[in-house]
Amino acid sequence: MNGAHTLLDTLVEAGIEVCFANPGTSEMHLVTAIGKTDAVRPILCLFEGVVTGAADGYARMADNPAITLLHLAPGYANGMANLHNASKAHSAVVNIVGDHAVWHHKYNAPLTSDVPGHVRLQSAWVRTSASAEDLALAGAEAVQAARGGAGHIATLIVPANHAWEPAQKSYDRLAPEGLATVADSAIEAVAAALANGRRTAIVVGGRAMREAPLEMLGRIAAGCNATLLCETFPVRVQRGAGRTPLARIPYFAEQAIEFLKDFEQIILVGAQEPVAFFAYPGVPSLLAPPDCAMMTLAGVHDDIPAALAKLATRVTTAAECPRQPRIVPSLTGTELSPGAIADVISAGLPENAIISDEGITCAQELFLRTEGAPAHDWISVTGGSIGQGLPVSFGASIACPDRKVVAFQADGSAMYTVQSLWSMARERSDVTVVLLNNSSYAILNVELTRLKAGDPNPKTLSMLDLGNPVIDWVSIAQGMQVDACKVETVAEFENAFAKAMQTRGPHLIEVMVVQNLGVPVKR
Amino acid sequence: MNGAHTLLDTLVEAGIEVCFANPGTSEMHLVTAIGKTDAVRPILCLFEGVVTGAADGYARMADNPAITLLHLAPGYANGMANLHNASKAHSAVVNIVGDHAVWHHKYNAPLTSDVPGHVRLQSAWVRTSASAEDLALAGAEAVQAARGGAGHIATLIVPANHAWEPAQKSYDRLAPEGLATVADSAIEAVAAALANGRRTAIVVGGRAMREAPLEMLGRIAAGCNATLLCETFPVRVQRGAGRTPLARIPYFAEQAIEFLKDFEQIILVGAQEPVAFFAYPGVPSLLAPPDCAMMTLAGVHDDIPAALAKLATRVTTAAECPRQPRIVPSLTGTELSPGAIADVISAGLPENAIISDEGITCAQELFLRTEGAPAHDWISVTGGSIGQGLPVSFGASIACPDRKVVAFQADGSAMYTVQSLWSMARERSDVTVVLLNNSSYAILNVELTRLKAGDPNPKTLSMLDLGNPVIDWVSIAQGMQVDACKVETVAEFENAFAKAMQTRGPHLIEVMVVQNLGVPVKR
Repeated sequence: MNGAHTLLDTLVEAGIEVCFANPGTSEMHLVTAIGKTDAVRPILCLFEGVVTGAADGYARMADNPAITLLHLAPGYANGMANLHNASKAHSAVVNIVGDHAVWHHKYNAPLTSDVPGHVRLQSAWVRTSASAEDLALAGAEAVQAARGGAGHIATLIVPANHAWEPAQKSYDRLAPEGLATVADSAIEAVAAALANGRRTAIVVGGRAMREAPLEMLGRIAAGCNATLLCETFPVRVQRGAGRTPLARIPYFAEQAIEFLKDFEQIILVGAQEPVAFFAYPGVPSLLAPPDCAMMTLAGVHDDIPAALAKLATRVTTAAECPRQPRIVPSLTGTELSPGAIADVISAGLPENAIISDEGITCAQELFLRTEGAPAHDWISVTGGSIGQGLPVSFGASIACPDRKVVAFQADGSAMYTVQSLWSMARERSDVTVVLLNNSSYAILNVELTRLKAGDPNPKTLSMLDLGNPVIDWVSIAQGMQVDACKVETVAEFENAFAKAMQTRGPHLIEVMVVQNLGVPVKR
Repeated sequence: MNGAHTLLDTLVEAGIEVCFANPGTSEMHLVTAIGKTDAVRPILCLFEGVVTGAADGYARMADNPAITLLHLAPGYANGMANLHNASKAHSAVVNIVGDHAVWHHKYNAPLTSDVPGHVRLQSAWVRTSASAEDLALAGAEAVQAARGGAGHIATLIVPANHAWEPAQKSYDRLAPEGLATVADSAIEAVAAALANGRRTAIVVGGRAMREAPLEMLGRIAAGCNATLLCETFPVRVQRGAGRTPLARIPYFAEQAIEFLKDFEQIILVGAQEPVAFFAYPGVPSLLAPPDCAMMTLAGVHDDIPAALAKLATRVTTAAECPRQPRIVPSLTGTELSPGAIADVISAGLPENAIISDEGITCAQELFLRTEGAPAHDWISVTGGSIGQGLPVSFGASIACPDRKVVAFQADGSAMYTVQSLWSMARERSDVTVVLLNNSSYAILNVELTRLKAGDPNPKTLSMLDLGNPVIDWVSIAQGMQVDACKVETVAEFENAFAKAMQTRGPHLIEVMVVQNLGVPVKR
């Protein structure tokens, strides 16, 4: 037995089932240990941003951490952007980051760098093993830390010699710190507010967006005449026909301010106060009216279902939760506008699908038009760092192999972690990528206008343009052995989407979007 | 005028000519300012690892920094790995990292993160502008810092409001801290050592590997009976027919130890003491014999040519530098072994080409077999973080548009920053990518053996295997509009390489490598 084997045994004991990996030389003993257990499924990814994004998607859908296997500071650095997103999603992730053997650090070899300095930027918990014998305990603690509250990023740094030196002892699972109990005083305050007759919004986030708490929230909101609102970028919301309807706060600050302007109080349940994604000249950063009262029922790491159950005993609740009716859009016209694309997906979505949204300028239409689609889970880019959609949808499909995953994916964002397609092909994941080709960083064209940066000239606009040269997504996908086709009309998309929904395995449908790039019209 | 415009004016005044960019909303005023000047060429890259790797390649070949334009901490994070490589190469790079408007930070918007905490990990100089009026001075200081010594990474953080708020004053160029003068005592010590009759190696790195200092070193080494050695991963070595020959220290620690075992003293010129890339069980980290004397003539930021000129007056020098004769390999056989591939390149390389090496397990053969190729510059992965070869070759081609760039590129490494191909197509860069398809992280198969991790089983080996599914590089390259073909015999490769050398613009040749994956044979 060596340190790597005791670590693996401990992780298996703790209930780890999946390892997303992009290993290097310093992780070879860990790779060997994974090879020797049947309990952990290793999933090779060809870039670390795929590894960490997949771990995020897996955690959101499995409610269990995967481990990642990353190669020193540069390997972790390549995974940072999606760990940023995962940290904003409060996803449980256990990163195992290999490092040089302890004595090798002082020689300034090419890969030497400050691994702890890197990992602490996204990780709520960080520990370097002290010895081979300590490695297993450190692993148990990492899983415990990752499972605390709604979930955290825990990173264990493993000097190579700790993996290869002899060690004997593996550890039993350590109980994580559970969800925190909401104080009765907070529940009473919210109960009083819900009875005060003021115009009230309940902004819902985190685990409050699962089906059961949303039903309870729906009964409370209906009973108290409050409006249920969804965070702009929900971690995972269970929605669609038969479920509790809730409106999403718009992305653009001006629209969100307009959207929220009549509310006199806002109650936060697993969500934070609504703020603008970016600052803009002359636009407030806080989106609610200045005199709107803001109060928190429960934070993201609190026991939200318990708090809601208590709250329900203190306020008027409707006997039944309002339920979203099924809406089947009628498909007319040929032009692949964002609305038409959304209608095709809404019409053809199977029951219990997962939609991973990185559709950027096309995403608002899809959210609105899938309100009445068959019940599904919707997962978003939580931290604003693009390149998350493909890996997260891949990870979600690993967590839920029996569910269809639809990756609603903007072209510019897809390019960041395009290597995801290879892992999808390798694992035969049931992901259908709806690749929205508008040959542009379209959102930046919009932002340029909103930022009042002055009239853009062709040189400025060229820096936001993906059309020179045109990217052939079918060719790229096929290069990674993902079944792919391109569609240019609604009928073509309808056929391709239906076929993808009927066929297991990864598909990419390149949709040639026809899009008005003005500031999106508010609906 | 706003802060962004004064910054751009200052950068232009300082001699900045190129901006590698992957901007976002917080950089829109900077993008607009770039759009309004004719003096800066903006080069859009579709992933930040391409941006920073290209800036590294540009700096190595232009001896002038480019600026990068990066979007908050996640954007910088995506560029970190190649900035790690650039920092180990002592490349001059000026990163401009946009951040939220100052007042927006406290609201914890999705993209909020610790930008200074990120950038200081790779940057020798970091500054956040204090105001719009301060931005131009900060920019002048950033360029000054980047140009200090052999080169540094300087990162300027620009809160969005500093870019858009009014500002008037741009700045003149600030003189950088020059190269340091080597103390006479160090020169005398080395001169004495060169006369002491002990078996001596001179290990050369950094700017000592340019043509002129290498000629001087060649005369000194020949006169003093010393052996000239090249760092394993040279930043940029000017070599080939007619130039000073020098042998490279092997990558594998055991081979390097054998290679160095007879030397009694080592003189370092712009290089650091030879150390193992990784630690291995039972293998020393220091590669020179324990009793080998180690002395430094000049560090990487020292004025190496001046030190060599002084040294030459104190030691016996040959009147003429030894010169590498031209060797034209004869191409025989059909099998695309690493040696045969190298011979094709060596035979077909035009005069004054640039070879960017990320060939990993195939690279040693190419280095050896291009010793007698037409004179060329060779640039390597300096920091061990793979995914550097394509961006660095792209950046080199921007710096030297009239020179052929050959990117000798392993498949696994290519995938990390595959988006480079799109920028090559967009800019019509004259890069020929020799894509070495062995469908494997071949180096890890070798390392697995060397690390004595135990007999690998199929599950372990699957984690190092890129052949399931097979990656079709021609399809991927064509998806980004790069001319591409696949070759399976020496003759096919010879024809394709010759055609690429005769045709301007980007090409990718997918070479199906036939490779023995045992521990490479020492030559």
